[in-house]
Amino acid sequence: MANENKLQAIIAHAKEYGFVFPSSEIYDGLGAVYDYGQWGVELKRNVRDYWWRWMTQMNEQNIVGIDAAIFMHPTTWKASGHVDNFSDPMIDNKDSKKRYRVDHLIEGFAETLPQEQGDALIAEMEKLIAADDFAGLKTLIETNKIKCAVSGTVNWTDVRQFNLMFSTEVGSVAEESNTIYLRPETAQGIFVNFLNVQKTARMKIPFGIAQTGKAFRNEIVARGFIFRMREFEQMEMQFFVRPGTQKQWYEYWKEKRREWHSTLGVAADKYRFHDHVKLAHYADAACDIEYDFPMGFKELEGIHSRGDFDLTQHQLYSKKKMQYFDADIDPETGKAYGNYIPYVIETSIGLDRTILMLMSEAYTEEDLSTEEKQDSRVVMKFIPKLAPIKLAVLPLMKKDGLPEIARELMDECKQHFKCFYEEKDAIGKRYRRMDAIGTPFCVTIDHQSKEDQTVTIRYRDTMAQERVHISKVREIVQAAL
Amino acid sequence: MANENKLQAIIAHAKEYGFVFPSSEIYDGLGAVYDYGQWGVELKRNVRDYWWRWMTQMNEQNIVGIDAAIFMHPTTWKASGHVDNFSDPMIDNKDSKKRYRVDHLIEGFAETLPQEQGDALIAEMEKLIAADDFAGLKTLIETNKIKCAVSGTVNWTDVRQFNLMFSTEVGSVAEESNTIYLRPETAQGIFVNFLNVQKTARMKIPFGIAQTGKAFRNEIVARGFIFRMREFEQMEMQFFVRPGTQKQWYEYWKEKRREWHSTLGVAADKYRFHDHVKLAHYADAACDIEYDFPMGFKELEGIHSRGDFDLTQHQLYSKKKMQYFDADIDPETGKAYGNYIPYVIETSIGLDRTILMLMSEAYTEEDLSTEEKQDSRVVMKFIPKLAPIKLAVLPLMKKDGLPEIARELMDECKQHFKCFYEEKDAIGKRYRRMDAIGTPFCVTIDHQSKEDQTVTIRYRDTMAQERVHISKVREIVQAAL
Repeated sequence: MANENKLQAIIAHAKEYGFVFPSSEIYDGLGAVYDYGQWGVELKRNVRDYWWRWMTQMNEQNIVGIDAAIFMHPTTWKASGHVDNFSDPMIDNKDSKKRYRVDHLIEGFAETLPQEQGDALIAEMEKLIAADDFAGLKTLIETNKIKCAVSGTVNWTDVRQFNLMFSTEVGSVAEESNTIYLRPETAQGIFVNFLNVQKTARMKIPFGIAQTGKAFRNEIVARGFIFRMREFEQMEMQFFVRPGTQKQWYEYWKEKRREWHSTLGVAADKYRFHDHVKLAHYADAACDIEYDFPMGFKELEGIHSRGDFDLTQHQLYSKKKMQYFDADIDPETGKAYGNYIPYVIETSIGLDRTILMLMSEAYTEEDLSTEEKQDSRVVMKFIPKLAPIKLAVLPLMKKDGLPEIARELMDECKQHFKCFYEEKDAIGKRYRRMDAIGTPFCVTIDHQSKEDQTVTIRYRDTMAQERVHISKVREIVQAAL
Repeated sequence: MANENKLQAIIAHAKEYGFVFPSSEIYDGLGAVYDYGQWGVELKRNVRDYWWRWMTQMNEQNIVGIDAAIFMHPTTWKASGHVDNFSDPMIDNKDSKKRYRVDHLIEGFAETLPQEQGDALIAEMEKLIAADDFAGLKTLIETNKIKCAVSGTVNWTDVRQFNLMFSTEVGSVAEESNTIYLRPETAQGIFVNFLNVQKTARMKIPFGIAQTGKAFRNEIVARGFIFRMREFEQMEMQFFVRPGTQKQWYEYWKEKRREWHSTLGVAADKYRFHDHVKLAHYADAACDIEYDFPMGFKELEGIHSRGDFDLTQHQLYSKKKMQYFDADIDPETGKAYGNYIPYVIETSIGLDRTILMLMSEAYTEEDLSTEEKQDSRVVMKFIPKLAPIKLAVLPLMKKDGLPEIARELMDECKQHFKCFYEEKDAIGKRYRRMDAIGTPFCVTIDHQSKEDQTVTIRYRDTMAQERVHISKVREIVQAAL
C-alpha cells in the first residue's frame, strides 16, 4: 500500500474500531487533539505499564518513578530555557490572517525552485535563523515574493517569536494572578524533584528517575495524526551519573533501549538510530531512535547526554544546591569523589508515537480469496502482551446452555487478563471483528463443549483452529503474555 | 492524636518518605499543587489500576474505558453549563487586594455572632445567593461591617462571579486564536464520545464507559493537603440505562461502590453515605460517599442519577442525535423500546482523595517501649495489594556471598511484583524504613541461608519473624496480593 494511503487507512481503522477518535468530534473536533477509544486506551495502558515495569521494576539499574504535576512554578521554565528559547519565528499574512512558521514557508517555496537556487535560499535562511535576524528573514520572504497560499498576497507582518508553551492564569488574588505554563515536557518535573527523591529514597549514583505524563505544545503545524499533537504523553527517564562516566552510560542506554524496542514485535529493520550532528551547547551526545512510519523515518525516542546543564540551571535560579555527595573512593586520589552536580543521560519516548508505530506495524490487510469467492480481512497483529483484549469468549449460539459455559470461562479468565464476551452474529463475523482489534485468541463454545468440555480455540494470525479442553484455555493465553 | 495534628503528621511523613512533595518545592512551591514521589506514585498507580480493572475487567456489567484529552472543544463547556454556572461569587478587598469567596467571608463573620443572629445572617445570605443578587450580597457585607482579615477595612469591590475553569489560547491563526479550557471534570469526555463508543464497540444498554484522568479547577480556597488541589485526578464511570430504570441502577451502583470500598482495608465505620437533599434540577438522586478524614467527614466519591441532562445538552449544542436504538421488546406494548436518549448513573471518585484516605487509614504510630528502653515506630498499614513495595530483600551483610543470594531472589520476584533491595545499615533500621513506606514483607538473608537455603521473613504489622525456605518467598507474597 502506498504510504499516504496506509496512514489514511490506519486513521480510518482507528476510528471505526474504537482506537482513536478526533477529540470532541460531535463539535467537529479540536485541531491536533485526539481521544483514545475503548481499545486504544487499553493498548496505551499496556504500553505505558510495560515501559514503567521495565524501567522501575525489572531493570538492573536503580530506577524509581515519580508523578509530578503538569502545573509547575513558572521559574522552572525560565531556568530550563523554555520561556526564552522554546519558540519558532512566525509570520502572519495580513490578508488571510494565516500564520506560518518562517522556515516552513521558505522551505515550501524553495522546493518550487531549481535545485541549486533552492539550496542557496535555504542556506541563506539558516544563517538568518541562527543569527536571530528577524528583519532579515522578512526581507528574504519579500524579495523572493513568497506568497501566502490562501490569500496569494505578499502582504506580511513582521517576523515574531511565537512561544510554543500554553499559558494560563492561576491564583486567588485579583491583581496578582500568576501566569503559569502547561509543561511542554515532563523532564523538568524530574529535575526539580532530584534532591527530594535522592534523599528520601536514599539513592546512590548511578540511579534513575522515571516518569510518564501529559505534556502540551501549541504546535503551529500539527500533523501526522497522533504523531504530533498539541496534547501528548511522554515516557521519560533521567539517569544521574558521575561526571566523566556519561559516555559509557549513554552507550549503555542506547543499547538498553534498543533491547526494549526489540521486544515490541516491531521488525528490526523498521528502526534506525540517527545521531544528532548539531548538538545543544550543553550536550555531549544525542541520538534519535527513528521508526519507519507511513510518513517515512521519524523520531520516536531521543537519548541525550545532557551533562549537568539542567541541574546547574535549577541551582542557579532556585539558589538551592543541586549537589550529590559521592562517598565512593576515587582510585586516582584515594579520596571520596565528594560533592558534585551529577550528569544526566535522558531517554525520552512519545507514548502516542509508540501507539502509532504499533498500529502501523500491526495493521495488515490480507487477501483470503479462494476460487469460489473473494474475501479479505484487516488484522491488527499486536503481540499478545500489548493487545487490548487477550481472549474473546464466543458461545456459538445464545441458547442450550452455551452462554452459561462461556460465562464460567469468562469468570475464570477475567481474573487474570482482559476478556471479551459476545454471543451475537455469525461466528465468522465475530472472528473478523476480533481480528480488527487484534485479539490473539478466540474461543468458541458449541454443543460438543457440553459433552466433552472441549472448545475450539482460534489463533488470530494463522486463523488455525484446534480443539482443546476448556480447562487449558487460561494457560494457553497466559503462556503467550 | 488530635485530628489537626494527624493531618500535619501525615503531610510530614508523606514528604519525608517520598509519597508526596509540594510541587516545584525548590522554587518554594506552587499553591495547592503537589507532586507524587517515588512511593506515592506506586500507591497511586496501584489504586488507579485496581479501580480500572474492577470497572472494566472484573465487573459483571458491560463497561469499557476511554482516555479523552484534557483539551476539548469549548462548546463542550457551554453545553455542560460550566461556562455559565461553574463559578462562585467573589469579592475583593480594595486595600489588601485579597479575594474572598462571599459565602466563606460571611460564614466566617457569622461564627463570631451569637448563634441566633449568625443563623439569621446565613439564612439571608443563602436567599441572596439563590437569587444571584450580587448587589444585595455586597450590601449585606457592608451593613454588617464585615472586615477583611488582612487590611481590617470594609473597602470592598462589587461582588462578581469568578469562573473556576482555567483557560488558555490555542491555535495557529493570529487574530483568531481560540480560548479553550482545561477540563474541570473528566465526565464530559465520556458524554461527547458516547456515540463513538456505543457504535464502535457495539454496546447494548445498559453499559458503562469509564475514565481516569486529570482535571483542573482554579480553587480560590484550596486546602486540606491533597484533598482539594488545583490539579487533581478523577476516576469516573458513566452508566447508560433505559429511562425508567435509573432508580434501580442508582441503588445497584451505590451498593457496588460500597463493596469496592470494603476491599481497600479501610474500616467500615470510617465511611458514611450522605444523601443530597438539594438536588440539581436535572438529577433525581445523588449521594456522596464520605470518609472520616483527619479534617472530619468529607466527600470522597459521588454517585449521581443525572437523567438525560448531559446527552440532551450535547444534542442541543452539537445538533447531533445522541440517541440509542433499543431493540428489546417492551412487555407492556409488545414493541421495541426504540429510540431514546439514555439516562445516566455516574460514579465519580477523586484519586488523590483516595490516596489521602489510604494514607490516613494506614498511618499508625506504635509505642514499642519496653522496660529497658523507649522505642516507637511509624508504620503504614496499607493492604499488600496497594502497598508501593511488596517485598524488601535485605542481605544481612554486604559480603560472604549474601548479596548474591539476595540478588537471585530479587531476580525471581521482580518478574511478578515490586521489590526493593538494600544492603546497608543495621537490619532494624532497614525494617523501620520499610515499615514507614508500608512494605508488608521483608526477607533477610544471613549466613544460615548459605547452608540450608532458608531466610527470615518478617511481617510488617505483627513484626513476627519466621524462617522459611527461600523457594517459598515468592508464593507467600503472591498469596497476599
